[in-house]
Amino acid sequence: MSDRTPTGDHDQLRELLQRYARAADDRDVAALAALFHPEAEVTGSRGTQTLEEWLVGMRAPRAFPTSMHVIGDPLVVFGPDPDEAHLDTYAVVYQLSEPSSGGADLTLGIRYLDDVVRLDGRWVVRHRTASTLWMR
Amino acid sequence: MSDRTPTGDHDQLRELLQRYARAADDRDVAALAALFHPEAEVTGSRGTQTLEEWLVGMRAPRAFPTSMHVIGDPLVVFGPDPDEAHLDTYAVVYQLSEPSSGGADLTLGIRYLDDVVRLDGRWVVRHRTASTLWMR
Amino acid sequence: MSDRTPTGDHDQLRELLQRYARAADDRDVAALAALFHPEAEVTGSRGTQTLEEWLVGMRAPRAFPTSMHVIGDPLVVFGPDPDEAHLDTYAVVYQLSEPSSGGADLTLGIRYLDDVVRLDGRWVVRHRTASTLWMR
Repeated sequence: MSDRTPTGDHDQLRELLQRYARAADDRDVAALAALFHPEAEVTGSRGTQTLEEWLVGMRAPRAFPTSMHVIGDPLVVFGPDPDEAHLDTYAVVYQLSEPSSGGADLTLGIRYLDDVVRLDGRWVVRHRTASTLWMR
Repeated sequence: MSDRTPTGDHDQLRELLQRYARAADDRDVAALAALFHPEAEVTGSRGTQTLEEWLVGMRAPRAFPTSMHVIGDPLVVFGPDPDEAHLDTYAVVYQLSEPSSGGADLTLGIRYLDDVVRLDGRWVVRHRTASTLWMR
Repeated sequence: MSDRTPTGDHDQLRELLQRYARAADDRDVAALAALFHPEAEVTGSRGTQTLEEWLVGMRAPRAFPTSMHVIGDPLVVFGPDPDEAHLDTYAVVYQLSEPSSGGADLTLGIRYLDDVVRLDGRWVVRHRTASTLWMR
């Protein structure tokens, strides 16, 4: 393993975002919750919610049965504390209707602004602001 | 070169995926083959094929003359061997018809699940499963 | 900060591209200019322009009030000098019309080929070639 480099913070932060995408697309609410600080807040179209309030919405039946969160590279700024960082990330989210339903699909351009912290050696989201830039 | 950091495994794995995209879009079958283990298998819409069988399909004339494989960040899990990893990667593939043909373009949402191994110091795909999540 | 890994060249180069996306989408011409070498050239649909000529175009009123540059992972080749690299990057650029205007949106598939250099410890673009692969 001599040429195995340790996983750096940037790679860990990219992994956090990719784990979010898979958990959201798998409707795995427990996996989603594990990516957030217990006292996290999420600001979006429903205003600012606690993590628990936000997860209630994620557990509810969805208008689209299938989704694909294609998440781009985050722009990362570390600090002020070494265990804190700010991520600015573009994502394109494909919301797919049941092929047999005749419903139209929806595509959204989203910008995630995340304050993340290292908690017990693992990066988690402390505050997320999700803004929908466009939808089709 | 004192501030030149060595290329880590994550960067090498991202490079493997980007080289795949360029080789696929360039229709460069030799370059594609070099990204796979000689005994690789590819599982997709045609079932599970050996690398040679799969390359036959890649050499065949294509319905769309131009493509663009936009490949996202892989979710990487290393192990169990230090020279093994598993990649879970989202991609959006744009298949473009000849502008003068009047044909419609096709866009596909694809999930690649890759078992990769380090062979002679270079990561290659040992087994790929490609699933089409949606197409438009 | 013992487990804080230094930012490697790959991460710095990805940051350069993400800063480009944010500056382009924010119409922040000063921020854009800071990402280029003072003697940079940009080759695109208008031929090859000096940085100053290209920035004139970026300052002009635009047909689409909002944009989102979703920039993929660069394929990076370092050298020949340790302070030089070549980036081959796919991007999907969403150009959005005013919702009330009734105008159609435009989506472009773009390939950026960048020669970048390290100038005063910071990577900047020395020459960019932007090719539009498709538009819808």
